[in-house]
Amino acid sequence: MRLVRVGEPGRERPAVMIPGSEDKAFDLTGLVRDFDAEFFSTDGPARVAAAIDSGGLPYIGVDDVRVGAPIARPQAIYGIGLNYRDHAREVGMAAPLEPIIFNKAPNTLVGPHDDIILPPGSTYTDWEVELGVVVGRRASYLESPEAAAAHIAGFVAVNDVSERDMQLHRGGQWVKGKSFETFNPAGPFLVTADELPDLSNLRLVLRVNGEIMQDGTTADLVFDPSYLVWYLSQFMVLEPGDLIDTGTPAGVGMSFDPPRYLQPGDVLELEITGLGGHRNLVRSANTSAVDRIAPSHTAAG
Amino acid sequence: MRLVRVGEPGRERPAVMIPGSEDKAFDLTGLVRDFDAEFFSTDGPARVAAAIDSGGLPYIGVDDVRVGAPIARPQAIYGIGLNYRDHAREVGMAAPLEPIIFNKAPNTLVGPHDDIILPPGSTYTDWEVELGVVVGRRASYLESPEAAAAHIAGFVAVNDVSERDMQLHRGGQWVKGKSFETFNPAGPFLVTADELPDLSNLRLVLRVNGEIMQDGTTADLVFDPSYLVWYLSQFMVLEPGDLIDTGTPAGVGMSFDPPRYLQPGDVLELEITGLGGHRNLVRSANTSAVDRIAPSHTAAG
Repeated sequence: MRLVRVGEPGRERPAVMIPGSEDKAFDLTGLVRDFDAEFFSTDGPARVAAAIDSGGLPYIGVDDVRVGAPIARPQAIYGIGLNYRDHAREVGMAAPLEPIIFNKAPNTLVGPHDDIILPPGSTYTDWEVELGVVVGRRASYLESPEAAAAHIAGFVAVNDVSERDMQLHRGGQWVKGKSFETFNPAGPFLVTADELPDLSNLRLVLRVNGEIMQDGTTADLVFDPSYLVWYLSQFMVLEPGDLIDTGTPAGVGMSFDPPRYLQPGDVLELEITGLGGHRNLVRSANTSAVDRIAPSHTAAG
Repeated sequence: MRLVRVGEPGRERPAVMIPGSEDKAFDLTGLVRDFDAEFFSTDGPARVAAAIDSGGLPYIGVDDVRVGAPIARPQAIYGIGLNYRDHAREVGMAAPLEPIIFNKAPNTLVGPHDDIILPPGSTYTDWEVELGVVVGRRASYLESPEAAAAHIAGFVAVNDVSERDMQLHRGGQWVKGKSFETFNPAGPFLVTADELPDLSNLRLVLRVNGEIMQDGTTADLVFDPSYLVWYLSQFMVLEPGDLIDTGTPAGVGMSFDPPRYLQPGDVLELEITGLGGHRNLVRSANTSAVDRIAPSHTAAG
């Protein structure tokens, strides 16, 4: 089942795509409020499946309207660092022995084709195509990675946009470079876990202005989604609807020599096997502020 | 004005304390849904003040009922590291040149007298009494610290509970030790900014089993609340109702020689001038899991 949200930002309508049709969906307004914690914790996907079987759901076009992120703003967005072997190699690090967890602000979540806004003065904004995992059931101190699989609602293509100077040189915690507005495009749809049972070799591709920058596979993952949900549940309570950005394969801008970063006017495209793709215009922030934060790096950085 | 939420977890009723009375409040159910983003972004405090003036609000007792955190679960909780000169000294660090930002999961927020739950196997859980700042208006790329003051709704006493081994030795990002369930007691009330105009010398005291561990003052703050709101707004969009834990003075458990950490059965008390106090029982998690995550520290850690 492919869940989708269409409409203007903040007023998206929940819908479910019709099997075999890329441009039509059934409108779920009336059946569910949104794809939020309540939806996932009350067997929402099963209710949607039953409603499809019963028939009578109204059609809604999804081809000529804005597509939002396929989930409501989550309680938390967690990112996983250095989780592809080829990416760890390209930045000169060993693959981690346990997952590296960081945060992205929940309000970074935007639609798959929304503009990506460069922070004022930023010249180090980078891309990261990633497999996103949506939590389906509350997860706290789970027994095993195997037990964690039942806590996954589904998967979504995400871009863990990252400002490298802010992430790495401004005080030690990555969140500074991970939480700018628009820094988490997601979509176009959420594929429920039952429809994507084999995660072992999904292809992830990212292009800037048509040029392939990342072309990786989930075969290179260090820790798979079930392992990550189990692991995170030992440190924090995962809520239904939470999003986990599971890490990126090789080919990020900072790994090039010289490094390559996003510029206003760039067009960024990505796709993941079975999860569809994004297309974003990169633009500058609508603010007069430039370099408001002095770029002097601190002792702590 | 002192805003308070009373009732069982997840079903708290919003209320406002009656000036001069410590154990009574006016019930705001019906007037406002909750002290959430909508409340703060629609002049909620002004509506409450007007309702008090108009009279007719029903009384509600706040003395013999559970008190929740005085705000609904926020979009984000940000913490500030090493923000007191005396605390930076005690851990052997220079005071930072710019604020260190980290995250706590929003679902760590609990009431001021709720139990603090030790993670399974944890022997390094520490305390941090802090001045909490509640955001009143959306803040993005603010012009100056002076302009940021108008974006603060008020203040609340918080405890930035921290598991030091997880925070410092498990992969480089502090969030791992900052986001366990119950790790952010807050309350008992939110004091609106107009009632606490002078933040320059608030006393912060924390006791474990009656023994004073922390006894500091906001005079030792490196970056004050307005500066922090301005600074954070350069990196992420602050939403109405967001919470900022502004850092802790000297006297945390890890600074003792030998270090002192929380044990099951400990009673933790804290208070801040004008903001009231907490009293928490410390207990073990209700899970059979012990040391589920092997304590081997990683290369990244």
